[in-house]
Amino acid sequence: MKQLWKRLEKLFPEMVDLRRYFHQYPELSFQEEQTPKKIAEYLKNMGIEVKTGVGGRGVVGIIYGEKRGKTVALRADFDALPIQDEKTVEYRSKIPGVMHACGHDAHTATLLAVAKVLQEHRHLLKGKVVLIHQFAEEVAPGGAIAMIEDGCLDDVDVIFGTHLWSTLPIGTVGYRKGAIMAAADKFTVTIHGKGGHGAAPHETIDSIVIGTTYVQWLQHIVSRRLNPLTPAVVTVGSFHAGGAFNVIADQASIVGTVRTFDSSTQDFIIHEMENYLKALCQSVGASYRFDYEKGYPVVYNHEKETEFLVQCAKQVVGEENVLEMEPVMGGEDFAYYLQKVPGVFFFTGAGNPEVGAHYPHHHPKFDIDERAMLYAAKILISATVSYLNHHFDMESLASV
Amino acid sequence: MKQLWKRLEKLFPEMVDLRRYFHQYPELSFQEEQTPKKIAEYLKNMGIEVKTGVGGRGVVGIIYGEKRGKTVALRADFDALPIQDEKTVEYRSKIPGVMHACGHDAHTATLLAVAKVLQEHRHLLKGKVVLIHQFAEEVAPGGAIAMIEDGCLDDVDVIFGTHLWSTLPIGTVGYRKGAIMAAADKFTVTIHGKGGHGAAPHETIDSIVIGTTYVQWLQHIVSRRLNPLTPAVVTVGSFHAGGAFNVIADQASIVGTVRTFDSSTQDFIIHEMENYLKALCQSVGASYRFDYEKGYPVVYNHEKETEFLVQCAKQVVGEENVLEMEPVMGGEDFAYYLQKVPGVFFFTGAGNPEVGAHYPHHHPKFDIDERAMLYAAKILISATVSYLNHHFDMESLASV
Amino acid sequence: MKQLWKRLEKLFPEMVDLRRYFHQYPELSFQEEQTPKKIAEYLKNMGIEVKTGVGGRGVVGIIYGEKRGKTVALRADFDALPIQDEKTVEYRSKIPGVMHACGHDAHTATLLAVAKVLQEHRHLLKGKVVLIHQFAEEVAPGGAIAMIEDGCLDDVDVIFGTHLWSTLPIGTVGYRKGAIMAAADKFTVTIHGKGGHGAAPHETIDSIVIGTTYVQWLQHIVSRRLNPLTPAVVTVGSFHAGGAFNVIADQASIVGTVRTFDSSTQDFIIHEMENYLKALCQSVGASYRFDYEKGYPVVYNHEKETEFLVQCAKQVVGEENVLEMEPVMGGEDFAYYLQKVPGVFFFTGAGNPEVGAHYPHHHPKFDIDERAMLYAAKILISATVSYLNHHFDMESLASV
Amino acid sequence: MKQLWKRLEKLFPEMVDLRRYFHQYPELSFQEEQTPKKIAEYLKNMGIEVKTGVGGRGVVGIIYGEKRGKTVALRADFDALPIQDEKTVEYRSKIPGVMHACGHDAHTATLLAVAKVLQEHRHLLKGKVVLIHQFAEEVAPGGAIAMIEDGCLDDVDVIFGTHLWSTLPIGTVGYRKGAIMAAADKFTVTIHGKGGHGAAPHETIDSIVIGTTYVQWLQHIVSRRLNPLTPAVVTVGSFHAGGAFNVIADQASIVGTVRTFDSSTQDFIIHEMENYLKALCQSVGASYRFDYEKGYPVVYNHEKETEFLVQCAKQVVGEENVLEMEPVMGGEDFAYYLQKVPGVFFFTGAGNPEVGAHYPHHHPKFDIDERAMLYAAKILISATVSYLNHHFDMESLASV
Repeated sequence: MKQLWKRLEKLFPEMVDLRRYFHQYPELSFQEEQTPKKIAEYLKNMGIEVKTGVGGRGVVGIIYGEKRGKTVALRADFDALPIQDEKTVEYRSKIPGVMHACGHDAHTATLLAVAKVLQEHRHLLKGKVVLIHQFAEEVAPGGAIAMIEDGCLDDVDVIFGTHLWSTLPIGTVGYRKGAIMAAADKFTVTIHGKGGHGAAPHETIDSIVIGTTYVQWLQHIVSRRLNPLTPAVVTVGSFHAGGAFNVIADQASIVGTVRTFDSSTQDFIIHEMENYLKALCQSVGASYRFDYEKGYPVVYNHEKETEFLVQCAKQVVGEENVLEMEPVMGGEDFAYYLQKVPGVFFFTGAGNPEVGAHYPHHHPKFDIDERAMLYAAKILISATVSYLNHHFDMESLASV
Repeated sequence: MKQLWKRLEKLFPEMVDLRRYFHQYPELSFQEEQTPKKIAEYLKNMGIEVKTGVGGRGVVGIIYGEKRGKTVALRADFDALPIQDEKTVEYRSKIPGVMHACGHDAHTATLLAVAKVLQEHRHLLKGKVVLIHQFAEEVAPGGAIAMIEDGCLDDVDVIFGTHLWSTLPIGTVGYRKGAIMAAADKFTVTIHGKGGHGAAPHETIDSIVIGTTYVQWLQHIVSRRLNPLTPAVVTVGSFHAGGAFNVIADQASIVGTVRTFDSSTQDFIIHEMENYLKALCQSVGASYRFDYEKGYPVVYNHEKETEFLVQCAKQVVGEENVLEMEPVMGGEDFAYYLQKVPGVFFFTGAGNPEVGAHYPHHHPKFDIDERAMLYAAKILISATVSYLNHHFDMESLASV
Repeated sequence: MKQLWKRLEKLFPEMVDLRRYFHQYPELSFQEEQTPKKIAEYLKNMGIEVKTGVGGRGVVGIIYGEKRGKTVALRADFDALPIQDEKTVEYRSKIPGVMHACGHDAHTATLLAVAKVLQEHRHLLKGKVVLIHQFAEEVAPGGAIAMIEDGCLDDVDVIFGTHLWSTLPIGTVGYRKGAIMAAADKFTVTIHGKGGHGAAPHETIDSIVIGTTYVQWLQHIVSRRLNPLTPAVVTVGSFHAGGAFNVIADQASIVGTVRTFDSSTQDFIIHEMENYLKALCQSVGASYRFDYEKGYPVVYNHEKETEFLVQCAKQVVGEENVLEMEPVMGGEDFAYYLQKVPGVFFFTGAGNPEVGAHYPHHHPKFDIDERAMLYAAKILISATVSYLNHHFDMESLASV
Repeated sequence: MKQLWKRLEKLFPEMVDLRRYFHQYPELSFQEEQTPKKIAEYLKNMGIEVKTGVGGRGVVGIIYGEKRGKTVALRADFDALPIQDEKTVEYRSKIPGVMHACGHDAHTATLLAVAKVLQEHRHLLKGKVVLIHQFAEEVAPGGAIAMIEDGCLDDVDVIFGTHLWSTLPIGTVGYRKGAIMAAADKFTVTIHGKGGHGAAPHETIDSIVIGTTYVQWLQHIVSRRLNPLTPAVVTVGSFHAGGAFNVIADQASIVGTVRTFDSSTQDFIIHEMENYLKALCQSVGASYRFDYEKGYPVVYNHEKETEFLVQCAKQVVGEENVLEMEPVMGGEDFAYYLQKVPGVFFFTGAGNPEVGAHYPHHHPKFDIDERAMLYAAKILISATVSYLNHHFDMESLASV
């Protein structure tokens, strides 16, 4: 294993270059064109078998070990967010209003480096490695489900994935058995009032006043209607209404997300949200549209695979740096892979205030300590090789 | 007078054509190009002396009576609004998102017809008529102030203007001595919170929650902080925040208008608005920007001129159809003309459900009963001729 | 008249004593016992014919002039309010939680002094004077309606009444033709949620959260739903819910008042209030009770009588101190008298910061400049004598 | 052990009588007089050594086993709540507005029966049993701290306590290692506005509008400002303002509770609560008072003692009915005992819809399935005897 890690360490400058390149040219979910192209080229140049357009815009590479055996899938997502990059670093986004504010650039660079190391050492592998470069993780329905339908998990025995995480310090790894990430849904509320002159409110039905009343009420769901021990989030991410300052807006659009860890809470929130909306609108003569899209399900880590991964991680960052963590309220379409095959999704610490990597994910100044890519790659390599060659033999694992 | 009115009635189809033309090709305030061009051409074709680019985009025509005398100014505005026309009539707006939703198209057509009649009968006039075709009434600072600075009121003795009004029935006229329209101001509030992932509200400062709290609070100013006998309006016309459904917005922009009839109320509202905004933002660690632009002052009708105009109006629509009205909360930069010279601004009924003219001004389906143009034009002609030839001799007026 | 005024001035110390006595022993509406007793005794001691228990707790005195003629009614109310007196003066209330915070003590002292002067000079009077000492003005249905039903207005030709007013400066008088005081209604909203442990909100329906949401919403009625030119008030005067800090309240009681000047606005507000309440409660599984008691109607001053009173007032305080005023949002059951007979209700200035008389009515520190009683009494005497002897002969009036 | 349980079962009718007696004569915290008197008499009648007035109103009994050994403390609280009993059963509260709505009546009856059984079998005990009958659990600072200061824990080696729990089904037991109940604090907010007439809001500072705005804002603390994974509750239990419907209230009193499981969350909430309150009041010219009383700390069960208790409970209700539970948001001053000596606080299921025992604690219809007292008493007897005689020898435990 040490030999593979050494090779990886030599690739670090290349990983950084790759990551910074993607960082400068981010592409929004379902609009990725150059990114998958570049990934495919990189893999092909190494002689890896590549399928493009998987499930739409996904790229799948396959590394064949010399001997037959199990199949391990590794996944990295590659889409960006509609956020304006406010960093001042040289590698900041060159695309106005689009930014890799969640680390998918680094996920991609990490998996490409892992691919290079494994491909170069495929004589050591007993089985196959499926490299899943996934598009559109940020926007439901996401790319995972389409890629699965398009066959990317066929014959796969286990899947591993990681998220670089700016709120965990560099050099640590976070894991959790069972539910580690929330179900992440999207709601779109449209309130139709009646427009009119800004000086004559009584002749209108003011959609902004109704909409702001609604947003205020939404707070009660978490604060009063749910069990305080049941984690949940109701976030309004955007509120748009009106054009001119002196025209009362006839329509308000309120879009946001709900995060839950179980379906009864999810259903209760949906019910509460629509119930009050309906009552409010009816009482003032407005109408509404309530669209609720259930997004990614809970990311649920399998028990045995998690224990295995923890062993691999301890080899890389040391026993004391592998930490059981609270579940994360964010959603991930990695959930779909774990519904199909066993596996584990873990977090690799990437936070470091000294290098400006202390902003939360989705923040306009988000950044990572790039060394996190090395830790993540080592763990993925370790897990892959160990799994293929020893398949969960923990004692063997200790010796590799 | 009857002779002039008869001529006018023959022009009615042309007035309708003009109005519908303007209706189909509306232009936003401060962006008017074709409209003033067409106005100037129309006036020139009649042999009227025309100045263009007055104060920027205004058009001024001058009709010289055969004898020397007083000078009467008549004003019509010609800009449109950023509203999507939702009517289904043939003459609906052809410009996406722009619409004559306040009747300025008809004001323009009316004044053009008045000009034609007066120009044809200038041998009957003792003095001058200044035709003020004004741009940009809808958006402060408006066109009036620039046109005045550019000399449009030089030598003017009195000014008359009217607004076609869909909430007054066709065939009526509304007037009021003193304050008839409100001071109309614009405010722009920007709240700067801290963005972040939609599932981690505790790591952010949620500008939408702060902004909706602010809009709710604003209601208290009118409901609790002002004397119930003091009319005032605080309207939020637009609220914009956030892009993605799962990203907490770091900034909310809240834009609206304040209407008042006296400056102490105006000042008190400004004070209350900023006071709470400051307190709210400070208490949650947000920052803000508060821009308040005082708009048009109160439209204040002069007493003697109003009495004179009422007489003229009674001749046109009958005594019982000239109605003293409540002041209107809307603002008008006609206010500036009345600060310089005596005059009166009145309302000409244009509402008629039978022809679809029952929507309030600034509504996406706003329309007028086009016969209102005839009534308005007759009153303006009557006032102009009477004023120039008899100058406030009410008894003569009765006989014309 | 001068002779009557001089006599009155000599009575001023007695008026002050009376007023301060009543001030120290205030009695709540419909609970007045000692106050009417004392009034009746005072009148009887002067030899005035007295009826007690009129309409319940009212006192009516009748002064018979030497000659036959018209009948003038003068009215003063005598009930107090459930407010804790926070003044530090010697004559402050001795009854905990009860206070003459609206000046009815002074109204009573004023009318008693007027009675004394008129009784002593009844040889000068041509006709009758009916002294209406009314109970329970502060709480609907009020005493007026019961006293009228009990005959206090029989044979009455005209009625005069005044309110001492701390927001008008001492030495002035305020009047208004037509509507001078609002319709004043009472609403009682009870929200029935579901109680429970303070730490388990999800097992309850929190009536305080629902109730505060409702109070916030009520602000929209005035701020957004009414014509800004239509004066109206919706005030929540009391909000009571819950007992222990750690028990979620199952019930919230919200009581307040609505003030309007016309019945369509009144009806609209009632509709809006119940509409949202119903929607809100249904949407969260609460139930409610909505009681709306229409209170006193608009106080509507008769035109001719108002002009007459204005003349009388000018004699007392000087022409420049008789001021046309805005209507007052407060209600008064004097409205009922004016529905039956012609008359006028006016305001006598009683404000004077130098003597601590600068707090609004119903304030815990409310007080008056006691000289206001002199002005009020002179005007009432003047109006009574002039009306009886000259009956609206304004020229005679000028000479008295 | 069986022999002790049999004796206990015979006592069940007496336990029910005791419980129902206390239920009919509830006494508020810090006002208990008859209850401790009756407890002391009962214990004395059995020949148990009794101290009264411990820490104020507490009662402590001591049972001396025949042999020397360890000391076990058992605790039951005996105060009631300011809630009106709305049950229709014969044994409902006879004291208006006071009710045993949390089961302390049954706790007391249970411990008295346990005492009787143990006293009768003290020849089997190796050591002492301290019976702690505690006053004032419902109201901080509670009785526990004063009883501890007065020596009730002197020489005690371990303490056990239970809460009968209507939301756990009869026949089950709930436990949790570590934090099982929250820190429970009390806050009292007083807002001082400016009173005045209900029809003149602009002359006042309306404390009800400010107070309801504040309550609405409080919702944001839990919904937006805290980590969704950090359980916390902010409850307003009472809101009181105003007297008359037509007087604007100058003062609003808002009282409630905060529940947290760690002190940094507690401190953050305090900070947020006062911060906004201060800002809100300052911005409208009101003043405020913010009192925050930290109440009981977290109830923290010791690990070894919890495991021991679980074994005892399994013997009584069967293995499958002893359930690990979520922490409870309610507070308990049992916390103080556990800060001094090892021990465990557990929940005994008392819910049963068939007997009307399905209302949450602190509900006006709260009741229990009285058989819960039997289960609780058996577990306490079992734990006491096992601990004294075998001291944590789990294998011996299995055989008793």
